[in-house]
Amino acid sequence: MNKIKIESKYSPFPKPIALIGCLIDGKPNFMNIAWFNRMSMEPNQWMISMNKNHHTFQGIKENKTFSMNFPNNELVEKTDFCGLVSGRDFDKSQLFTIFYGDLKTAPLISDCPISVELEVIELIEKQNQMIIIGLVKNIYSEEKYLTNGELDPKKIQLLIFVKASPDGFYFNLGENIGQAWKIGKDYKVD
Amino acid sequence: MNKIKIESKYSPFPKPIALIGCLIDGKPNFMNIAWFNRMSMEPNQWMISMNKNHHTFQGIKENKTFSMNFPNNELVEKTDFCGLVSGRDFDKSQLFTIFYGDLKTAPLISDCPISVELEVIELIEKQNQMIIIGLVKNIYSEEKYLTNGELDPKKIQLLIFVKASPDGFYFNLGENIGQAWKIGKDYKVD
Repeated sequence: MNKIKIESKYSPFPKPIALIGCLIDGKPNFMNIAWFNRMSMEPNQWMISMNKNHHTFQGIKENKTFSMNFPNNELVEKTDFCGLVSGRDFDKSQLFTIFYGDLKTAPLISDCPISVELEVIELIEKQNQMIIIGLVKNIYSEEKYLTNGELDPKKIQLLIFVKASPDGFYFNLGENIGQAWKIGKDYKVD
Repeated sequence: MNKIKIESKYSPFPKPIALIGCLIDGKPNFMNIAWFNRMSMEPNQWMISMNKNHHTFQGIKENKTFSMNFPNNELVEKTDFCGLVSGRDFDKSQLFTIFYGDLKTAPLISDCPISVELEVIELIEKQNQMIIIGLVKNIYSEEKYLTNGELDPKKIQLLIFVKASPDGFYFNLGENIGQAWKIGKDYKVD
């Protein structure tokens, strides 16, 4: 067996990346985040892990609403910039074109192919991390990102983040190599 | 503004995909899962959301250990197959070459570029979902997946899962389009 132990402080799997939007003292702020995923299907709840000292967490706690905006290639510099600078030190409200949906305290980024507004369902504290459980209220996109009326992964081209070593990188989505709940049906059990 | 509301029962962002391994009544079983991410950096804890009725959850609850194995392209059929068939109905212990690390009840998949053994830290119940918090004990890989001693995302080529519509698809990792905490430094604020 050729297996070797790898320095284990990373999480080397590909991650989605989002710009979380909230209002802090009435002003829109955005941070980038890669530690989140879905929590349940019905209701459509997502879970995020975030250090509670983030400026953004103050806004989420205050308004009990936030947005998750999914950037594409064209936004890679601004996305990274949002992770380099805290809203405590820099006014990020002018970085993007902002719109609001049904929740009036979740600023949405018009420049992103997909923007989602969420309501906070629960905050769970673990050490210094907060697990934030959010209920999806609305998902916004544009006609140009649809194929046959459905969001098309190759058209939306959301950024993917990988940090398998001390350096992290943003990637494109590659080739489609199979349909889920289908390609496995072809697998022949010996 | 061209924004339209999209039917909101999906989570259209790209997701990692893993084969979770555990022992159930002493026999290795594997399920595929896409709802997980990191929870904290120090300690290196990951969080998973899983319906508590999954056969796999019984094994995790019983042994308080499990593995997460990250498949590449070559394993797409077997990965999908693991999501089509429950361990209650089919013996999946013969699907892969298995090895064990320091934890003796977390079966690891040798065929995967990366395998991780974890210890259960906490189980949090939310409706029928379980949030499983696991502490990474060891990450295993092979020399051929390293560049300059570090895991190389383009060599490991982990599968990515996207379900932006009723259909889900497995994708490759695409092009590297920028380094994190670096490309944003070039962003010039107007």
